[in-house]
Amino acid sequence: MVVGDDRSIVDERRRPTPAGGVAILDAITEVVHDLSASHDDVTVGVGIAGLVERRGVLLAAPNLAVTEAVDVRRGLKQRLGRDVAVDNDATCATLAEWRLGAATGVDDVVLVTLGTGIGGGLVTGGALQHGAHGFAGEFGHMVVDPDGPPCVCGRRGCWERYASGAGLAMLARHAAVEGRLDDVVARTGSIDALRGEDVRDAAVAGDEQAIAVVDAFARWVAIGLVNLTNVLDPAMFVLGGGLAATPDLYEPPIARWFDALLYSSEVRPAPRLAFATMGEQAAAVGAALLGAG
Amino acid sequence: MVVGDDRSIVDERRRPTPAGGVAILDAITEVVHDLSASHDDVTVGVGIAGLVERRGVLLAAPNLAVTEAVDVRRGLKQRLGRDVAVDNDATCATLAEWRLGAATGVDDVVLVTLGTGIGGGLVTGGALQHGAHGFAGEFGHMVVDPDGPPCVCGRRGCWERYASGAGLAMLARHAAVEGRLDDVVARTGSIDALRGEDVRDAAVAGDEQAIAVVDAFARWVAIGLVNLTNVLDPAMFVLGGGLAATPDLYEPPIARWFDALLYSSEVRPAPRLAFATMGEQAAAVGAALLGAG
Repeated sequence: MVVGDDRSIVDERRRPTPAGGVAILDAITEVVHDLSASHDDVTVGVGIAGLVERRGVLLAAPNLAVTEAVDVRRGLKQRLGRDVAVDNDATCATLAEWRLGAATGVDDVVLVTLGTGIGGGLVTGGALQHGAHGFAGEFGHMVVDPDGPPCVCGRRGCWERYASGAGLAMLARHAAVEGRLDDVVARTGSIDALRGEDVRDAAVAGDEQAIAVVDAFARWVAIGLVNLTNVLDPAMFVLGGGLAATPDLYEPPIARWFDALLYSSEVRPAPRLAFATMGEQAAAVGAALLGAG
Repeated sequence: MVVGDDRSIVDERRRPTPAGGVAILDAITEVVHDLSASHDDVTVGVGIAGLVERRGVLLAAPNLAVTEAVDVRRGLKQRLGRDVAVDNDATCATLAEWRLGAATGVDDVVLVTLGTGIGGGLVTGGALQHGAHGFAGEFGHMVVDPDGPPCVCGRRGCWERYASGAGLAMLARHAAVEGRLDDVVARTGSIDALRGEDVRDAAVAGDEQAIAVVDAFARWVAIGLVNLTNVLDPAMFVLGGGLAATPDLYEPPIARWFDALLYSSEVRPAPRLAFATMGEQAAAVGAALLGAG
C-alpha cells in the first residue's frame, strides 16, 4: 500500500501469504519493487502478525507458516538495499487509528482487534508503546480462565479463546450442544458447520437464543477490556476486526458487561468504547506511516 | 516523611489512619505542620491507597473508611495554604523504586505490591504512567477467574483474591480443609487461625505440604505477571509487599510458573523479576519525590 504525503491511500497490491520466512521476505520484496516502479521516493514499513522484536526480528508467528526466527529488517535491507521499518501488525493498526482513525488526538488509547485471534496495541501518555522488547499489546494471551480450553499458544484459557471470532463460534457450539441454539442449527444443518457469522446474523434478525450467545460473548469481551482498564486506564478503547462491521449488535451488551465488571464503575469516569474506522487496511496504513517515520 | 535534596530520608512521622475523609485530611495537615516546624522549604506530596483522580480527588478507597469522594488536593490546599501533589500510593511507590530503588534506569517497569490486596504502577517508554484519569496500575482487580470467589470490590475472581497475602491464606485454608496441611494446622491449632505467614514459615522450614501451597500461590502470582507481560512487555517486574521479605522462597516457583505460562517464553526475552528494595517506605518516599516535582 502506498500512502501519500497527505496520508491518503495512493496505491495498493495484495498477495496471498506464502509459507516460510524466506518466501515471505521474497513476496514483500516483489510488492515493494512493483510499487516502487510506479511511485517515486517510497519509504517502506512492514507490519507482521506475530512477536516482532524491536530490532525487526520476527520471533514467533502462530498464524503464519513460520517455524524459525526471521530477521525481517535485515533480510529486506539485503533485498531492497534500503532501511525498512518493521513492527507487529496490530501495533501498526494502532498507529493508523490513532493518527488517522477513531482515536485521533486521544493520549491514552487501547486498540483491540477481535479477529480469528486477538491483537492489540497501546498509546499511553501520548506515545505509541512497544514494550521493552517489542511485544506490548499481545492482549489475546492474557489468561482469563486458568483451567479453560487449550489455546494455540500451548497454554489454557487465553482471552482469545473466548472473545475472538473463533471464540464466538466455540460459545455458539457450546450453546448448540445444549440445545440452546435450535433455529440457527436448523439453518446451518449441523453443529460442525456453525460459524460465528451464523450467530451474528441470527442475532441481528432478532433470534433470542442467538442474542443470548452474543451476550455471553460480550461478557468475555468485557472481561478483557476490564482487565486492560485496570492496568492502563485508557480514555478510549478502539475495537477492530470482524466485530466492527456490526457495532450496533455488540456495543450495548459489551458496555453493559463492562459496567457490571469494572471495579468502582459507579464512581469513576469510564473509557469511551469506539469502533475502528480504518477497516482491514489499518495495519497496512500504519506500516506505511511507520516507514515514513 | 521528609526526603532531602540528596533523596535520603531526613525525618518521618507516623499516624494511625483515622476514619472518614475529613479526619484523614486533618491528620495529614497535622503531620505536615509538625514536620514543617523543624524543616525549611518543605514541598508536600501525598500517596493514598485508592482510586485517585488526576486532579487529586480520592474517588473510592475500599481499604480506608472513606465512603464519599474526597477532594484531597483542594482540602489540603485550604488547610495548608499551598499546592500539594496527590497520587495513588502504589504509583508513588513505583516512582520511588524507579528513581531510587530496584528499577533505577529501566525504561519499562511494572511494580506489583502483593500485600493485603494488590497495588501497582507502571513506567512505559521511560515515563511514569497515570492513565487517562489517574487509575492506571489497579492490577489487583484484573479478573483471572470469572467464576471465582467474590472480591471486596463486588466482582468475582479478581487477581488479588489469589495472589495477595489474603490469597495465600485462602489457598492455605483450602489445603487445610482437604487435609493437605496437617502439620501446619497442628501448630496453629485451627484452620481459622491459619495465616499466610504460618505457611510461609513452614515452607521456609522445609514442610513439603506448605511448599506445595506456596507453589499454588506462585502459580496465581505468575498468571497475573503473564497477563501484565502480554499487555506491557516490561523489561523488569519489581515485586513489593510482604513477599519481598523472603524472595528466596517465592522467586523460584514464580519464575518457573511464569516461564510455563507465558506465550512463546521459549523464544522471547523475558522480563527480569526483581524484588522491591525500598520496603514499606517506598510509597511515602515516592510521594515526597512527587511533591518535589
